[in-house]
Amino acid sequence: MSQLSTRHLLGIKDITAEDIQLIFETADNFKEVLNRPIKKVPSLRDITIANIFFENSTRTRLSFELAEKRLSADVVNFSSSTSSVKKGETLIDTVNNILSMKVDMVVMRHSSPGAPHFLAKNISANIVNAGDGTHEHPTQALLDAFSIREKLGDVAGKKVAIIGDILHSRVALSNIFCLQKLGAEIMVCGPTTLIPKHIQSLGVKVEHDVEKALKWCDVANVLRIQLERQQIKYFPSLREYSLYFGINKKMLDRLDKEIVIMHPGPINRGVELNSDVADSEHSIILQQVENGVAVRMAVLYLLAGVK
Amino acid sequence: MSQLSTRHLLGIKDITAEDIQLIFETADNFKEVLNRPIKKVPSLRDITIANIFFENSTRTRLSFELAEKRLSADVVNFSSSTSSVKKGETLIDTVNNILSMKVDMVVMRHSSPGAPHFLAKNISANIVNAGDGTHEHPTQALLDAFSIREKLGDVAGKKVAIIGDILHSRVALSNIFCLQKLGAEIMVCGPTTLIPKHIQSLGVKVEHDVEKALKWCDVANVLRIQLERQQIKYFPSLREYSLYFGINKKMLDRLDKEIVIMHPGPINRGVELNSDVADSEHSIILQQVENGVAVRMAVLYLLAGVK
Amino acid sequence: MSQLSTRHLLGIKDITAEDIQLIFETADNFKEVLNRPIKKVPSLRDITIANIFFENSTRTRLSFELAEKRLSADVVNFSSSTSSVKKGETLIDTVNNILSMKVDMVVMRHSSPGAPHFLAKNISANIVNAGDGTHEHPTQALLDAFSIREKLGDVAGKKVAIIGDILHSRVALSNIFCLQKLGAEIMVCGPTTLIPKHIQSLGVKVEHDVEKALKWCDVANVLRIQLERQQIKYFPSLREYSLYFGINKKMLDRLDKEIVIMHPGPINRGVELNSDVADSEHSIILQQVENGVAVRMAVLYLLAGVK
Repeated sequence: MSQLSTRHLLGIKDITAEDIQLIFETADNFKEVLNRPIKKVPSLRDITIANIFFENSTRTRLSFELAEKRLSADVVNFSSSTSSVKKGETLIDTVNNILSMKVDMVVMRHSSPGAPHFLAKNISANIVNAGDGTHEHPTQALLDAFSIREKLGDVAGKKVAIIGDILHSRVALSNIFCLQKLGAEIMVCGPTTLIPKHIQSLGVKVEHDVEKALKWCDVANVLRIQLERQQIKYFPSLREYSLYFGINKKMLDRLDKEIVIMHPGPINRGVELNSDVADSEHSIILQQVENGVAVRMAVLYLLAGVK
Repeated sequence: MSQLSTRHLLGIKDITAEDIQLIFETADNFKEVLNRPIKKVPSLRDITIANIFFENSTRTRLSFELAEKRLSADVVNFSSSTSSVKKGETLIDTVNNILSMKVDMVVMRHSSPGAPHFLAKNISANIVNAGDGTHEHPTQALLDAFSIREKLGDVAGKKVAIIGDILHSRVALSNIFCLQKLGAEIMVCGPTTLIPKHIQSLGVKVEHDVEKALKWCDVANVLRIQLERQQIKYFPSLREYSLYFGINKKMLDRLDKEIVIMHPGPINRGVELNSDVADSEHSIILQQVENGVAVRMAVLYLLAGVK
Repeated sequence: MSQLSTRHLLGIKDITAEDIQLIFETADNFKEVLNRPIKKVPSLRDITIANIFFENSTRTRLSFELAEKRLSADVVNFSSSTSSVKKGETLIDTVNNILSMKVDMVVMRHSSPGAPHFLAKNISANIVNAGDGTHEHPTQALLDAFSIREKLGDVAGKKVAIIGDILHSRVALSNIFCLQKLGAEIMVCGPTTLIPKHIQSLGVKVEHDVEKALKWCDVANVLRIQLERQQIKYFPSLREYSLYFGINKKMLDRLDKEIVIMHPGPINRGVELNSDVADSEHSIILQQVENGVAVRMAVLYLLAGVK
């Protein structure tokens, strides 16, 4: 097999374990390229990619942009926010603009779940979902799983605890889909107010005691507490969250094994993760960021081959 | 003839019908290029173009940027707003910056009518006006006329009704100049408060009944009601505007002929245009957007040849 | 000598007079390139440069971006402001992102003095300081000194008066270091509230009478009064500043010699400098802007050669 089963990457839910393996093998090659003095390959010369971000995102946009430029694609950027415009209008508008531009690929972040699916139905370009509301963030899940595979040799059979605000996290949902397809066991851990009621139907364990979660897992993927989403009244305060769910070095020292610490960034140091953990040898947080460029190169390269 | 009569595109008023025809013939070629798998040509390699937008503009900026990158130009973008700075200072500043940059071409949008003319007097780069206040928006007029020519075979002899806020529209003024130079008849239609008093001196008909305008014309170019300009007290409310001037499918069905519907975008659906018209077979709105890239490629390519 | 003594340009304080001479000789070559029809050289092909601006800057960012593109580097831009984020977090975040991106060079502006030094300690890319708070702005000082050398043949032995808000100016500090290393004599001139107490320890003269400063100097480098920093109560008002320190043509006419007028831009016309001076034959303000691109090309080119 040398081609993806899909021409869009809308969510991990829609792709196969074989797709994921193909992306990983391709990313292995690109990671080698990124460690050479000349990091650029001509693979996507003559391909135009539009990065359309309706929500702010520094690190995801930069990572995609680097991946695109390293593949020699032509890149146009469009950033906006949906706050001032009616969403329906904006998306139709977006469709029209993209049609006009005859771009080959679109990388889109949007606050509405399903927005990239809407695009995929209406235009002929390959679409990559760079995060749609609280729904999916597939390239983050791929780079997370790729980083586990790199660190532990394989994802199958590993126990991964996803810790934090599961309810509002597209990273959590995409991670669950991705890691399960690759044969990992998943536990989610957080305050009851931040874990969706239906989550057990996805076949994941639920835990409210972070020390028990750490004891169970091989890998702890610690999510960012999204300060901007703290509108909910019964949300624990940051201080409470940090007290009951924040992870520090002492907690890791109490375990009788080594576990791997991951975080999608940016870290709220002292809230969900102490610096003595984030910067410790347990952490593969910087490797995640580095792998992000290689994995995104692989996704773009492979999608461009599916017409 | 194979060269424009001018080294800047400041307004349609300043160029000849021959210039317009040359732009159209060149755009025909670029439109073919845009429908090939490899959409890039090396024509403007080694040319640097600065896109300087003092007013927000998503679709015009993206269209220009695509056109520039498809021509292999180097592109730098600068976006700002004139709200917080004294305008005179900013323009002199702009002149200085552009001088320093030794860029070859400048695409500029500015809220002050005449701003690109001021630039053209002070710097040696080729200047393209991408909209100066309520004055001109020449590439929009060119792509509109190009789209009529594509749809109806020719512009000469056609009846075009421009419907909406004529008073505050640079699109209207540039369209009138362009279509008249190509031999079309023009009618403007809108509420009396939105039609400038002097407009008849330009040789256009004036109509306040939208159904009569539709009955008269071959092409209705429906302008966007600019919500942000609704400060004027005697402006009809959106609801009133929609009631008296909004165009819907029933109105088109009552005509005994087919007319072409155009709109420069983005559409306020349900205000100046109903979706049953915007998305109907009457509409060439998406073709306009597509033609925008080809027409802008032609303008940039031709201006680069005039030193 | 054909290599800089440093792999970063963090401040003029840290580099040698030989470094500065090497940058100037290299900039001479690039200035020739910028006056050719084809202004692009392939020197930094396969090099990726990230422009990371935590403070707004139109002209400095554009100048760097042009320099980078003329050197055929790949460029990614990131602009933000530090207002809403805790600074420590942002910088660590920045480090992580840059690590991930495996960019070769970083051009950074930040409101905190020392921020680029922090970066240089933590990542392997070459760092160029594009302004860190009120501390240093080394490329501005280099282009200023380069412009004096171009105009007067040499910097050594020349008398340079730096006039304006010395207290809050990174341009003043970098200029003092740079011009002294090249053998110039320096005077600072401004209201007592805007001249730091320790300044004489740097070996510069202090003057509070602008006419005396003009009489003394060969070159007057007039700084911009930074309107946004006018929070201090005992600051003279703009009107007072203009009355006592603003420079006009009459003042220059009263001198029995020609002096050179410089300004880093953008000018507050009628405040620190009248238009009859800014636009006169005394002024080399536009040459400064032009030289900025050549000097920045030289800095980037030379740093890329130091690993």
